[in-house]
Amino acid sequence: ALIGDLHAADIADLTEALPSELRDALVHALGRELDPEMLAELDDQVRDEVLEQIEPEMLATHLAELDTDDAAEVLEDLDVDERKRVLEALPPADRELVAEALSYPESSAGRLMQRDYVAVPEYWNVGQVIDWLRDSDSLPEEFYELFVVDPGHKPVGAVPLSRAMRAKRPVPVADIMSAKQKLFPVEMDQEEVAFQFEQYDLTSAAVVDMDGRLIGQITIDDVVDVIEEEHEEDLHRLGGVNAEGDLFHSAGQTARRRSSWLLVNLFTAVIASITIALFADTIEQIVALAILMPIVASMGGNAGTQTLTVAVRALATKELTSANAWRIFWKETVVGGYNGVFFAILAGALS
Amino acid sequence: ALIGDLHAADIADLTEALPSELRDALVHALGRELDPEMLAELDDQVRDEVLEQIEPEMLATHLAELDTDDAAEVLEDLDVDERKRVLEALPPADRELVAEALSYPESSAGRLMQRDYVAVPEYWNVGQVIDWLRDSDSLPEEFYELFVVDPGHKPVGAVPLSRAMRAKRPVPVADIMSAKQKLFPVEMDQEEVAFQFEQYDLTSAAVVDMDGRLIGQITIDDVVDVIEEEHEEDLHRLGGVNAEGDLFHSAGQTARRRSSWLLVNLFTAVIASITIALFADTIEQIVALAILMPIVASMGGNAGTQTLTVAVRALATKELTSANAWRIFWKETVVGGYNGVFFAILAGALS
Repeated sequence: ALIGDLHAADIADLTEALPSELRDALVHALGRELDPEMLAELDDQVRDEVLEQIEPEMLATHLAELDTDDAAEVLEDLDVDERKRVLEALPPADRELVAEALSYPESSAGRLMQRDYVAVPEYWNVGQVIDWLRDSDSLPEEFYELFVVDPGHKPVGAVPLSRAMRAKRPVPVADIMSAKQKLFPVEMDQEEVAFQFEQYDLTSAAVVDMDGRLIGQITIDDVVDVIEEEHEEDLHRLGGVNAEGDLFHSAGQTARRRSSWLLVNLFTAVIASITIALFADTIEQIVALAILMPIVASMGGNAGTQTLTVAVRALATKELTSANAWRIFWKETVVGGYNGVFFAILAGALS
Repeated sequence: ALIGDLHAADIADLTEALPSELRDALVHALGRELDPEMLAELDDQVRDEVLEQIEPEMLATHLAELDTDDAAEVLEDLDVDERKRVLEALPPADRELVAEALSYPESSAGRLMQRDYVAVPEYWNVGQVIDWLRDSDSLPEEFYELFVVDPGHKPVGAVPLSRAMRAKRPVPVADIMSAKQKLFPVEMDQEEVAFQFEQYDLTSAAVVDMDGRLIGQITIDDVVDVIEEEHEEDLHRLGGVNAEGDLFHSAGQTARRRSSWLLVNLFTAVIASITIALFADTIEQIVALAILMPIVASMGGNAGTQTLTVAVRALATKELTSANAWRIFWKETVVGGYNGVFFAILAGALS
């Protein structure tokens, strides 16, 4: 009851911050009172642990209260047997939607979308829409646009709610809709979805199937999670850390997961050592060479890291494309040349 | 006319991709036809160049069409004299709002907010709100919530538009509003604003002044830009790249900007060299030591980078706080120990 007033995201953060044993105890203590939204907010690694503490039937009860995209996200971490048991315990209508969501490729628009959306026929007017909204009770919790569809359920435009609220009742929705709406095919990669949301300041957008029919919507809150995920991936790859959820693994697990990259590094370092070994005789004669080695190695490494960082970021924001790749390549070469010459003179003077 | 159909963000990207000379030519060619929204979308560095090509009076005409937060963002890059000239050329109402926006600290909620929002008194019902919205013509382009205020103009709740549209006309707004809305003080740092938007899946939120009065709203599209900015900062700092807009600087500028970090690195490398010099006699006797040096140095450096990467990310997502800092510190020490021992044995076996 004490944590009852907190937002699901805060409960998830608290759960993550607890040591494993207390976490299990908390989940048991909450039982049926557990906030299902909180499951969707947990880090993958912690969620695995939490799900192990919940019976499939109880889990199904929780999942039935979530949006389909969140339910699918929770289910995708389970192994095949358990997933089947939970799916069977779901109410039939939910089961079908969740199973369908799981049938789309991971990281696709299909996984990201909710199946709840508001679509109205193009021949309606604002008054009809308002009356229908007031009577209907199977609407999504929150929505930002009305999708206008033709008789084949293909989207022909979208009306932001702020515009619909300001229009007078007899105005046809076709007159106030934006026809140039962005549509997202169900197979589109989530990174591309996130890019377009950012680029065009979208709040929600329609997802269409292969035949161009409206089947769901993606909302900005899910896209923000994708943006975070993609950033984490970029950063971790650059830092040579393998996988997500690093913070919540035990020390042994983390050490093993990070060792693969260190192994690659050991291999390259050994090559450097072998090269040095070829010149062992020279080094024996001029020890100064050995003394200066770390300067050469670390300056080269750091200048490389700088270029790599800028390139990774520019690729992510699509500022680096095939159109300007050669120009940037050439520029980075010149930058490397400038700083190389400058620091060679400086290091020479120092030694 | 050819580029007239493109979205402002796409025009901005195209402008950024052009070489400097063509960029200037394009801005001149567009003249009055230039899409003001595009100015807000440009990278800081490119915007500086573009603004130099536009007369203050013309710029004022463009800025008057933008939201106050965007106009302030464009103006903040100008030098003081030019800023003053542009401000004076703005229509008086806009001038006051933009000048006020500029008076808030950089990277604060005050800079991020728009001054246009929709506020309704708590004693109104849904019907009154709808009638007022239909009659009013000074409303923001798009909005997602109605802010409910008391007679002192202090926010007491918020009604998402989707809920307002579904309520019947006689329902008082006080009955359907969410009272637990998040309020953002005008001085709050944008990083904290972004964190709360992410954490609580907000789409828009009210900004209040020191006395708790509603003065503006922050919308999710601006927050997404902040998230991107903060990520860029994290990544670039980790990679030892100094500043934003790196891709759009000339090679000479970039080399100079990156050199400061390389200088720090040269300094540490020199310390390493001096340490090695102390053992010059030993190295002369056992050249193998010199040969193994790069292995020790690069393994240590990489393991350190891994820990640093995880820590930077965890700090950004608030997964690393003072509450668990010691636990994580201890864990990283153990991870370092594990991999240290493992790779020491491996490297020993190899040599």
